[in-house]
Amino acid sequence: MKMKNKQNLIAAALVVVLAFTPTVAHAADSLPSWNDGKAKQSIIDFVAKVTTPGSPDFVPVPERIAVFDNDGTLWCEQPIPVQLYFALDRVKALAPQHPEWKDKEPFASLLKGDLKTALAGGDHALIELVMATHTGMTTVEFEQIVKDWIATAKHPKTGKLFTAMTYQPMLEVLAYLRANGFKNFIVSGGGIEFMRPWMEQVYGIPPEQVVGSSIKTKYEMRDGKPVLVRLPEINFIDDKTGKPVGINSHIGRQPIAAFGNSDGDQQMLEWTQAGGARLMMLVHHDDAEREFAYGAKSHIGTFSDALMAEAKQKGWIVINMKNDWKKVFPFEQ
Amino acid sequence: MKMKNKQNLIAAALVVVLAFTPTVAHAADSLPSWNDGKAKQSIIDFVAKVTTPGSPDFVPVPERIAVFDNDGTLWCEQPIPVQLYFALDRVKALAPQHPEWKDKEPFASLLKGDLKTALAGGDHALIELVMATHTGMTTVEFEQIVKDWIATAKHPKTGKLFTAMTYQPMLEVLAYLRANGFKNFIVSGGGIEFMRPWMEQVYGIPPEQVVGSSIKTKYEMRDGKPVLVRLPEINFIDDKTGKPVGINSHIGRQPIAAFGNSDGDQQMLEWTQAGGARLMMLVHHDDAEREFAYGAKSHIGTFSDALMAEAKQKGWIVINMKNDWKKVFPFEQ
Repeated sequence: MKMKNKQNLIAAALVVVLAFTPTVAHAADSLPSWNDGKAKQSIIDFVAKVTTPGSPDFVPVPERIAVFDNDGTLWCEQPIPVQLYFALDRVKALAPQHPEWKDKEPFASLLKGDLKTALAGGDHALIELVMATHTGMTTVEFEQIVKDWIATAKHPKTGKLFTAMTYQPMLEVLAYLRANGFKNFIVSGGGIEFMRPWMEQVYGIPPEQVVGSSIKTKYEMRDGKPVLVRLPEINFIDDKTGKPVGINSHIGRQPIAAFGNSDGDQQMLEWTQAGGARLMMLVHHDDAEREFAYGAKSHIGTFSDALMAEAKQKGWIVINMKNDWKKVFPFEQ
Repeated sequence: MKMKNKQNLIAAALVVVLAFTPTVAHAADSLPSWNDGKAKQSIIDFVAKVTTPGSPDFVPVPERIAVFDNDGTLWCEQPIPVQLYFALDRVKALAPQHPEWKDKEPFASLLKGDLKTALAGGDHALIELVMATHTGMTTVEFEQIVKDWIATAKHPKTGKLFTAMTYQPMLEVLAYLRANGFKNFIVSGGGIEFMRPWMEQVYGIPPEQVVGSSIKTKYEMRDGKPVLVRLPEINFIDDKTGKPVGINSHIGRQPIAAFGNSDGDQQMLEWTQAGGARLMMLVHHDDAEREFAYGAKSHIGTFSDALMAEAKQKGWIVINMKNDWKKVFPFEQ
């Protein structure tokens, strides 16, 4: 908006033209890490259908909303979800200020390095962990804690940064949809303020397009400056039936494409499908060699037999990581 | 994205160039309904400051977030807020199905046309009204009810559609900011699902950029189709200290410009100012002739002496409707 004359504007316009030309001309090449097959083709066909003016399934740009689960759909959630590693590292960092944790579960086992016993307490133990490590500070302080941690934290198996443990084929889907006028939203069970600080850089998704679970916050003045304090009280769980609720609350439109990988995404896909010509996809983790193989019997990212049956019955596309993806992670050769 | 050859793309690009040229060349003319003065100048200066590359106050496009209160800031809230007219009309429409309302307040007085007695119950009466008229149906059904109502409902004083009772100078601010790379959000105490169905058309603000008060919803299957049912339970009140909370929850960034008109907007302006070079503005209703004159003593849109003192002390700009605006409503000559 700040250019000084029409010549500059025309030059800028030509840059825009040239930038878009490859996308328009070679749409199929926008998904190079996908093997040819039903999954890849269903994405290309869907995008063509909803973006072709005059098509009976044409969708105007403002309504091209796509929603993506995060853990297990856009990045690796095994052997445990990334946010849990964050919580564990926070417990270690905060332990000196909490001598009582030595005798209190789940902290005691965690500090001894016994993850299994620590998490045996199930949801209750998890919530205790989150409340102890994710609350009490201001939102600005928490954002900085997350940024500092994610800048160096590494996956225990690959030794790569967690932010490098994203799925290359899904990064291509994000870019392909965006180039075709879609607005991509994250709709994840993960903490909304754990995800926002790094998603713009990693996925090109800005904070206002991130929907997640949250704790309550409280506005107050500290030393004459306004802050939002993170309270140890759950505000919203963005999982299962919570996902359509979160979508309605944050987006206010029904998505036209939804991508998930587990039982937690079932209702999001159902809700997306209710609208008409829609695309519903589930990542199935069947690649023990390049990533992990898990599904119906896994506690993390459960992909139950019931979900598989619903997918089959309703025409949702199951992405078989092993066959559909040439490459899983961006760092692979 | 669907054009067939480069020639079409260049033609489209030139249309973009021509569309932007007047904005760039004659920025001051983007606010034709504002009288010259401090208020108008503060908007122009602020936009220049944050959009000029190299300026110490330059803000990159993704961070150009502006927030707007709705009632009394973008449209008329007198003699009672528009959403209350909606609730009253719903009571009349639903009365045949609720014979018990004849003997029950606030419904009994309302049905007799005695608004004053009906609303004498204060917040309790208001909540009863909202729950009786805004809940029980699905989100899709409610959206249709709002759309049908707003298409014909008229202001009792002017006889104009409520959607014509917007402030022309503020519509110009919305467009001016948008043309300068801003993303405009509504942050209103009004019901989020009452506002979304018409704001895209009236303000150019899409549903995902509307933050408001909300009731809880529940996901369920009805005849094999998924729906969200609106429950008679308050989820969130987006007013006063709730506004920074709502901004953090929905947007996840601190705004760089905030526009309000009453005590309900105080914390939103404080929260906006905390970030650096920021613009905070309050519409002051002092124009009984063209609109309404109200402020410190009004129950609707209270602009207290304390808020006026805080504005003065903190350098927030007070817009005096009478002097600062050439024209109030779009339909004026």
